[in-house]
Amino acid sequence: MATASPRPSARTPLPADVEVPEVVVQRLPLYVRVLRQFDREGVEVVSSEQLGDYLQMTPAQIRKDLSYFGRFGKQGRGYNVKHLASALRSILGLDSTWNAAIIGMGRLGRAIASYPGFGPEGFRIVAAFDADPAVVGTSEGDLQIQSVAEIPATVKSRNIKIGIVAVPSRFAQLVVDAVVRAGITSVLNYAPMTPQVPPGVKIRSIDPVLALQSMTYYMK
Amino acid sequence: MATASPRPSARTPLPADVEVPEVVVQRLPLYVRVLRQFDREGVEVVSSEQLGDYLQMTPAQIRKDLSYFGRFGKQGRGYNVKHLASALRSILGLDSTWNAAIIGMGRLGRAIASYPGFGPEGFRIVAAFDADPAVVGTSEGDLQIQSVAEIPATVKSRNIKIGIVAVPSRFAQLVVDAVVRAGITSVLNYAPMTPQVPPGVKIRSIDPVLALQSMTYYMK
Repeated sequence: MATASPRPSARTPLPADVEVPEVVVQRLPLYVRVLRQFDREGVEVVSSEQLGDYLQMTPAQIRKDLSYFGRFGKQGRGYNVKHLASALRSILGLDSTWNAAIIGMGRLGRAIASYPGFGPEGFRIVAAFDADPAVVGTSEGDLQIQSVAEIPATVKSRNIKIGIVAVPSRFAQLVVDAVVRAGITSVLNYAPMTPQVPPGVKIRSIDPVLALQSMTYYMK
Repeated sequence: MATASPRPSARTPLPADVEVPEVVVQRLPLYVRVLRQFDREGVEVVSSEQLGDYLQMTPAQIRKDLSYFGRFGKQGRGYNVKHLASALRSILGLDSTWNAAIIGMGRLGRAIASYPGFGPEGFRIVAAFDADPAVVGTSEGDLQIQSVAEIPATVKSRNIKIGIVAVPSRFAQLVVDAVVRAGITSVLNYAPMTPQVPPGVKIRSIDPVLALQSMTYYMK
């Protein structure tokens, strides 16, 4: 911490300059979903025990995760569902709309372009790129497929914040490097490998194998 | 528990009939990956504190998760990396090969069929189905696309354990019902909705929105 203030207790909002562990941030969208579910069911107040039961995490882990972002619950009285959900949404930046581009308009890229789950959650695919001259210039839905050479200019002009990488593994690192050079700081990678990114750039990989591996337990 | 034996302490292997919370099972593949990574780096012993640092979970949560499956570590001496990784792989059934079928051979289904990440991890796509008569009978790589009417017979004859559902949301529940009727107990769903499954059937959804939502935090 940059300040010399006394060490905050668990019940005190932490200063804004405390760095939140990335894995904690990754859990927040899950909390938002569970809270949305509780809210839909008319639940107004929820305890860390109930959240823990639902997510199979210890209440202490949940309280610790949330404590990074301030003071949400009252001792022994639980969290207000609507308030916590709305606070976490705002902390995560989910009230904004985010522009994304797909790089790689093969089968997978085209399937992603028509994925209906992004729009309702505020993610808009506004550009699509491919390296194949035979594909550049063709359309996919409302998208005109552009050359990868146009990535830098388009990322800037369309205010694109997210790069969705749908190229074969052997090209993934190259493409990630290119979108990062263009100024993109968030990468969603569909290739079955983990590209390297410089500090300050975030990357998440879509990993169907991880999902399958958590079901084989039940199939033995 | 079915037995009247004394309540086991945290240091005693639990009887096989204790039901492990599903979310704990879902975390095991992550542990396996982290352990594989430690092993690659030549680390031989790892503590719950180190695992916790890596996954940003409390050491207590990690010890609790692992305690469901027996007694892996020695108090104060940590876990043997190779032994724990191998035990968890065996617990998860990752040493076997699992046959899977894709239902829905549109763009997404075809992209999944050629996804190179499944094979090395022991998942084999051995059948593909579609409802469109114009598609049935055509090939995709080594797969001959079959009619959805053939799901029951093929699931049985090819020993298919996993159904990968790549149809539009409005058909997803119907398809999930059909593969479950055919005897499949593990479903990997790519549609942006959550189909219902009967008790005893597991379902995981590929959810790119969750991944995006954990990056927007850094883009605000």
